[in-house]
This record gives sequence, structure tokens and C-alpha cells, in this order.
Amino acid sequence: MRNFKLLLSYDGTDFKGWQTQPGCRTVQETLETALMRLTCENSLRVYPSGRTDAGVHAVGQVAHFFSAMQIPQAKWLRAINAHLPDDIVVHVFEEAPYAFDANRDALRKLYRYVIHDGPTPSPFLRKYCCHSKLALDAAAMARAAEVLKGQHDFHSFETEWPNRTSSIRTITHLSVNRAGAYIWIDVEADGFLYNMVRAIAGTLINVGRGFWPEGKVAEILQAENRVEAGPTAPAQGLFLMRVTY
Amino acid sequence: MRNFKLLLSYDGTDFKGWQTQPGCRTVQETLETALMRLTCENSLRVYPSGRTDAGVHAVGQVAHFFSAMQIPQAKWLRAINAHLPDDIVVHVFEEAPYAFDANRDALRKLYRYVIHDGPTPSPFLRKYCCHSKLALDAAAMARAAEVLKGQHDFHSFETEWPNRTSSIRTITHLSVNRAGAYIWIDVEADGFLYNMVRAIAGTLINVGRGFWPEGKVAEILQAENRVEAGPTAPAQGLFLMRVTY
Repeated sequence: MRNFKLLLSYDGTDFKGWQTQPGCRTVQETLETALMRLTCENSLRVYPSGRTDAGVHAVGQVAHFFSAMQIPQAKWLRAINAHLPDDIVVHVFEEAPYAFDANRDALRKLYRYVIHDGPTPSPFLRKYCCHSKLALDAAAMARAAEVLKGQHDFHSFETEWPNRTSSIRTITHLSVNRAGAYIWIDVEADGFLYNMVRAIAGTLINVGRGFWPEGKVAEILQAENRVEAGPTAPAQGLFLMRVTY
Repeated sequence: MRNFKLLLSYDGTDFKGWQTQPGCRTVQETLETALMRLTCENSLRVYPSGRTDAGVHAVGQVAHFFSAMQIPQAKWLRAINAHLPDDIVVHVFEEAPYAFDANRDALRKLYRYVIHDGPTPSPFLRKYCCHSKLALDAAAMARAAEVLKGQHDFHSFETEWPNRTSSIRTITHLSVNRAGAYIWIDVEADGFLYNMVRAIAGTLINVGRGFWPEGKVAEILQAENRVEAGPTAPAQGLFLMRVTY
């Protein structure tokens, strides 16, 4: 058996997230089906850097799988894409060291949350951003986000999930930028809690629309209580951008 | 009766083009249904600057319709968008002079054709561009396009259509640009023949991939024969960008 590493992107719109669930179209099941056809193996498991939820997109997801396949390397990329539907694309397909683990070896992951605050939504980007009818103050959102940088207990920004041992994480990069009517929030951390980026986005949107003062974010962080933070922003604005090893 | 003007965009993916056809979801039928609900009128016709084909997108389509509706102007935009599915969005809704005709009064229309020539397609833009497996020489395409500017008989670049009186048109702007792995061809003219932009795109792609020399485009134009030009490029790369009055 050899270990193979994939860099892939997917449009999350028509997937019920990464993880296989009975009766649902998921990224994992779709990818494993394609890889089993490619390798002619009856059983194959793909391990991602982390699972993404229903409707969440990935630009730079990384995954690994073990296989005994003997296909020449020059054919790997074209062959796997020929077996995949067009809402999943593998961009890099390479052999990895046998010990490589896409989840455990990830040093940092970068997520992007995209918001559109133009007066009318775009029919082209409706599945790839969250639309705000109110114009947002992106500069206020950027200032408010500053207190989240570094190592903190992010319990106020997680949806609780079984077997989670600690809610302490380190945000290594956090920025809020605007171009035209689009605002994007970039969050890079050594790990993420369940719904963490969407809870941060929902909180910063409340600041951006003037509903909360900028200083409220520090209070939420200190409260370590999910009910203090803003709502979980919709899945379609969230992208897994990059995994750093 | 008053005359109303709409500026609208639509994602052409799930429409069988503009024009109403029995049993098909079209932009015209969807828009007229929404406007009839809004105005409580039983019969209403929307006239566009020009029809778009199945799968073709619009960023800046203009249309007009006559109605006796008495709704306050402040509510027009929000109300029509509330009645429309999210793949059509009206951006401007205003009263126009009674004599305004979205088709006849159009001085110029600008279309954009988008091509992606990266090694693997993007799952996000698969419905909004044409993917070329071969890398294209965009500079050669731009030079080859020069001879199409100005007034010519574009018979080589049209799919014939009944009742078309002349195939002479004036291209007022034509450019080919690249950003990263994306190439876009902008064509502005006083009018377009059926499939004209897609035939120009198919021809320039043949030049870009080195299949034809740059000078071939002048020969095609002079031939006034559709079989000389390149194939009609796929609909999903085409956008109606702007109509000038």
C-alpha cells in the first residue's frame, strides 16, 4: 500500500457536507466512489484535513488515502477528474510519505467568509456569499476582530460537539477586507471548533451593521458562552481556502 | 398605461433562454409571471434589449413593459425581487418615457465571453466560463481580433435566422484580456447576429491554441461563409454586460 495526497476544490452547494451519511450526496462518498473506480479497489477511505459542513465550499481542501494502485503517475490527475462530477475537482494528486496524515499534520487552516452588502444580490454569487441588506462598516468589523487574534478559549464561538477536549485555539491571522460591495473575513488558526468561523462572521456582521459596539467582541470572548455571540452565519459564504503543513 | 424600464441580471444556467417556449423555464415567462403578480394584471409583456439564448447569462440586460400599476415607487424594487426566484435579480426599476423601446433604442450592446485555460477547471466557475485544456495565446487572439473592428458583413460569424435583412454590423469595441488563467473577449457593437459572439470566440480560440494563424481571421471575414469560421463556443461563457442608450 502507498499513501496518496490530494489537493481538491468543491462547490459545496449540492453536497450534504464532507462526511458520508446514508441517503445523502457527500464529498467523501463521491470522492471514494470515484477513487474505487479509478483503483479498481472495493474498499477505500479518504481522510480530509477536516470535515466541511453542508453547503460549505473548499478551494484548497487536502485529503489522503491508501491504495495499492499501479496506474502510471502521468495519468492520475486526468483519470480521477474524469471519474468525478464537475462540482469536485482534484488539482494536485501526488504520492506522500507513508506517515502523512492530512488532519493530524495540518499546522494551520485558512477559512474565508464572504459577505455581499450591495443593494440587490447577485444571481451569480448567491450560492457563494451571504447577502446583507444593510450596508456594513467593514473598518469597524476589522477593528472589532483584533481581540480575537492569538490564543484564547473560543467557547463563545463554538457549537458544542461530543468528545471535544478543549476549546482553546490560536488564531494566527484574522483580517476583514472590502472590494466594492464584497467583504471577506479571513481567519487562519491552528484548528477550528465546530461552526467557529460562522459564529465569528455572525458576530462581526452584528458589529458591521451597527447593532453592537466594537468592544462587544472582547466581552463575548471573555464570557465563554455561546449565547453571547452573534448568530451562525449561513454556510454558503464559507470557503476552506488553504491548509498549511 | 405607463412604460417601465428594468435593469436586470440573471444566471442563465437553469433557463432555456429569454423567449417563452411551451414547457420550458425561460427568463421572459418567469419575469412576466412575477410582474403579473406584482401588478395584479392578467396580461403583461416584457420586451428585452435582445433575446439571450439558453445558458447565456446577463449582467446588464434592459427590458421594458407597459402597466397601469399604482404601487408607490419606493416599493417597486423590493417587491419585484420578492416575487422573483434568486437566479433573476432586478437592480433598477424606473418609469421610462412612453416611447422608450429597450430593443429599438439600444445604440450599442456589450457582450463578454469568458475562457479558463488553467490545467484543471474550477468547480465554482464551470457554469460561467468555457474551459480550454490547452493554454491559449491571448496576445495572438487580441492581434487576430483587430480586423473585426469597424463595419463589416459578418455573415461568416452568424447562424442564419429567418427574416434577417442584413448581416452588416459595426463593432465599436473589441478586446481580449487575460488575468491569471482567465481570458475574456469583450465585443461591443451596434447590433449582433445570431450566435455572432460565440462564433467570434470559437474562431479566436482556434487562433489562441495555435491551430490557425492570426491572419486567418481576415480571410474568414472576407469569405462571408459560416463554414470558414471556428465552432460556436459554448453558451455558458457568454454574458450580456451592458446596453447603451
